[in-house]
Amino acid sequence: MPKTIDVTELILRDAHQSLLATRMALEDMVPACADLDQAGYWSVECWGGATFDACIRFLNEDPWERLRTFRKLMPHTRLQMLLRGQNLLGYRHYEDHVVDRFVEKAAENGMDVFRVFDALNDIRNLRRAVDAVRHTGKHAQGTICYTVSPLHTTTGFVEMAERLVDLGCDSICIKDMAALLKPQPAYDLVKGIKEACGEDVRVHVHVHATTGVTMVSLMKAIEAGADCVDTAISSLSLGPGHNPTESLVEMLEGTGFTTRLEKPRLLALKRYFNQVRPRYREFLSNITGVETEIFDSQIPGGMISNMESQLKQQGAAGKLDEVLAEVPRVREDAGFPPLVTPSSQIVGTQAVFNVMMGRYHVMTGEFADLMLGYYGETMGRRDRKLIMQATKQTGKALISGRPADLLKPEWQELRAAALDLKGSNGSDEDVLTYAMFPQVAPKFFAARSQGPKNLGKPGGAGDSPAQRPATPPPAAPAETPANGKGPVRTPITYNVKVNGQTHRVTVSPE
Amino acid sequence: MPKTIDVTELILRDAHQSLLATRMALEDMVPACADLDQAGYWSVECWGGATFDACIRFLNEDPWERLRTFRKLMPHTRLQMLLRGQNLLGYRHYEDHVVDRFVEKAAENGMDVFRVFDALNDIRNLRRAVDAVRHTGKHAQGTICYTVSPLHTTTGFVEMAERLVDLGCDSICIKDMAALLKPQPAYDLVKGIKEACGEDVRVHVHVHATTGVTMVSLMKAIEAGADCVDTAISSLSLGPGHNPTESLVEMLEGTGFTTRLEKPRLLALKRYFNQVRPRYREFLSNITGVETEIFDSQIPGGMISNMESQLKQQGAAGKLDEVLAEVPRVREDAGFPPLVTPSSQIVGTQAVFNVMMGRYHVMTGEFADLMLGYYGETMGRRDRKLIMQATKQTGKALISGRPADLLKPEWQELRAAALDLKGSNGSDEDVLTYAMFPQVAPKFFAARSQGPKNLGKPGGAGDSPAQRPATPPPAAPAETPANGKGPVRTPITYNVKVNGQTHRVTVSPE
Repeated sequence: MPKTIDVTELILRDAHQSLLATRMALEDMVPACADLDQAGYWSVECWGGATFDACIRFLNEDPWERLRTFRKLMPHTRLQMLLRGQNLLGYRHYEDHVVDRFVEKAAENGMDVFRVFDALNDIRNLRRAVDAVRHTGKHAQGTICYTVSPLHTTTGFVEMAERLVDLGCDSICIKDMAALLKPQPAYDLVKGIKEACGEDVRVHVHVHATTGVTMVSLMKAIEAGADCVDTAISSLSLGPGHNPTESLVEMLEGTGFTTRLEKPRLLALKRYFNQVRPRYREFLSNITGVETEIFDSQIPGGMISNMESQLKQQGAAGKLDEVLAEVPRVREDAGFPPLVTPSSQIVGTQAVFNVMMGRYHVMTGEFADLMLGYYGETMGRRDRKLIMQATKQTGKALISGRPADLLKPEWQELRAAALDLKGSNGSDEDVLTYAMFPQVAPKFFAARSQGPKNLGKPGGAGDSPAQRPATPPPAAPAETPANGKGPVRTPITYNVKVNGQTHRVTVSPE
Repeated sequence: MPKTIDVTELILRDAHQSLLATRMALEDMVPACADLDQAGYWSVECWGGATFDACIRFLNEDPWERLRTFRKLMPHTRLQMLLRGQNLLGYRHYEDHVVDRFVEKAAENGMDVFRVFDALNDIRNLRRAVDAVRHTGKHAQGTICYTVSPLHTTTGFVEMAERLVDLGCDSICIKDMAALLKPQPAYDLVKGIKEACGEDVRVHVHVHATTGVTMVSLMKAIEAGADCVDTAISSLSLGPGHNPTESLVEMLEGTGFTTRLEKPRLLALKRYFNQVRPRYREFLSNITGVETEIFDSQIPGGMISNMESQLKQQGAAGKLDEVLAEVPRVREDAGFPPLVTPSSQIVGTQAVFNVMMGRYHVMTGEFADLMLGYYGETMGRRDRKLIMQATKQTGKALISGRPADLLKPEWQELRAAALDLKGSNGSDEDVLTYAMFPQVAPKFFAARSQGPKNLGKPGGAGDSPAQRPATPPPAAPAETPANGKGPVRTPITYNVKVNGQTHRVTVSPE
């Protein structure tokens, strides 16, 4: 009998976060839920990460309502979310009771599996969230952010897994957000965790596809004993996204492994999301092929495009190679953090500053905080001179404790501020929405009653004529003459804006 | 010490044949040759397949001159070609002496490795070409076309490998043109060949990427003892193309295997072909993602798009699913041939006819020939009733011998006809060009002195304004008013034909 490998489907969260700038709206997910629920997945990742932010910033969608909808439409499948430990889904550390409340409310609204990570792999930043999940009786998954550096070893990662198990995690996730996990390390890491923590400790493997090697890494992880792997339906896969679910099923044929997935359901899902994808054309990632340069620079694909646009804004697009070479140096100065939200942005921006203005002539506030321990502990020693510079610049002390220990209880204050906002419904959910996005929440609460705005109306700013490519725009009959003066007689060149991009189009008689 | 795995680079032949409709011109290949020559490849596939046809049909390029150029620019690397056995590079069987002459001339002009295959895996159709290669002292690679059917087994393929070795082949190629080779069968097949034929018989593995599983198959083939695998530089990889070369190199890190490839050369090649690719935008394959449906229908991706357009032309686009279901039945009736040029076209067209006009109400001439043995022997028994129908329809007899045995010496006749053509240079190479493409060669010989025509002038028929996407078309200033009557004031809808496709474009004031 072949061993059954569990599968987590990413299409409702990380797949469109990686490929469509997190823009997929609930209305495009609803028709897929029945097939997702029946296909045989161990879980469907559908919430957390950047989706909460995108819901209130771009889609005028209540993320809590989205979660409740999933719960209703997928009664047979575990719902899974990605949670940034003490940061929750925001960009700062929260006081412990806010963490508790968030987890409690997420569980209450239907969440089953909480994948909890910290950008620095600092376990102290995971502890409270994991405790909170255990308290609700839901599944707490402790996460190792996989990265490559002279200090990161299989042994080190295995020790981290042991500490996560000691914390009470129900399973371990190896999270390879930059597609750096090669087949042999994948094998060694899973094997190592199973040997150290016991065969019955579940190991989940999350990889992206960017470098073109991670499908093989999934195979090797499975051979080493992995229990569950993450994939995405093929019509939203590859590039900076993930390996295709259908290919995983086929890959295992004839091996000692199999899945519970039903192929006809997967095919229906593929066809469905194939139709959805063009609606989000304007957000589609530019990276479509394979990028193995990441192995040398260790810079995730998404980070490169961010830096490219930062440099362009400053008229320094030509400096990209210099910046790419600077990133690993800055990362070393900062003690080799994994590069994932928010450390990727902090290191990347500092590298841009270093190239543009001289090394550490200007230190960003976030980089100073990172150097001073306000994001947590890093694996490597941080540069002493830069720590002194950060102290001088910010007037803050170097800390070595858990950052959240410095925070005072803040729930009542957040609650009062949230309830004051126009359109707030007085629920704890609204307080949490406000807590995580205090700038965006007020606008969202005020506009919420207008209902979800799908793409084309991002923040009300959309006014381009081709916002919803799947729906043909109402058009005049094709033969309508230009200016009512008869058909085109000479070549005419127009600037035509389609999906915000200007094309130079020349029209001439046939 | 890790074992060194050899690599064949496909970028100059199968990569652009699969992704850019074989349209890449020599002028876009020349700048890459130095890096290709120095990167450490075992061979560079650069000739044969459909490239010969494309050279004279679309590019006004002498394919023999292309070969000589490669020889000059890549002195350190084996040049490799794909040869359709007794069909050479044409679409019919040739008399043995024409086969001899072709191989002799290819070797003389610089070819090192001849990968010889037959669409039906009928070894009798390979024998003469393999003998001819051995006679020149060059490398003869015998090819197994991998396919899946109730009759095709690992044992059967291994036996075919043994027969190819007996024929005197220097190596064996497993050719998986439809990306059907899954990891476990890949392992079993390579292992089986090595065990049956001996460890020192070289096994090369050629896979396409369409189904998303074959990178894993390459890993498994390597673990089983494969000596050489085929890949393509990442900027022209994936989809109906191949797995990326750079990813292969990275995939092996830390395993017991390595390659000789130099990463900086690969990066230079990636960047170079990234720039070349947009020039051929109009030919780019529509298939960009992963297609696992192929496993059920066993129909290669390219064949599906062909059938789609055949059906559309007949106003029956809605019948595609019916046709896809019919193909495996027609294939079974025909004795389960692998689906590869020309059997894929023959089976596919008959399936379309069956759906449109009733099963075998009309039998194509090619399908009748296939049923009567004029393409060679199939693995399975062919349907008796259909054989009788084919006999009646064509008046031809059922044959069981080698099809080329029926042919009379034809070289002198071909030579006389070729030399008669305007622009023929009297060389044996020209005779061979004429022999393979008697319809196209006359035009090519006559126009040859005008020199290579790159894309944008395909057969002189190109007159669309967007033929060379890399070069902006000469355009009137953007503000040129429509009909000289001032800028657009109301929305106007045009039908705009770009690259032969009609787009409905609405232009309105900003």
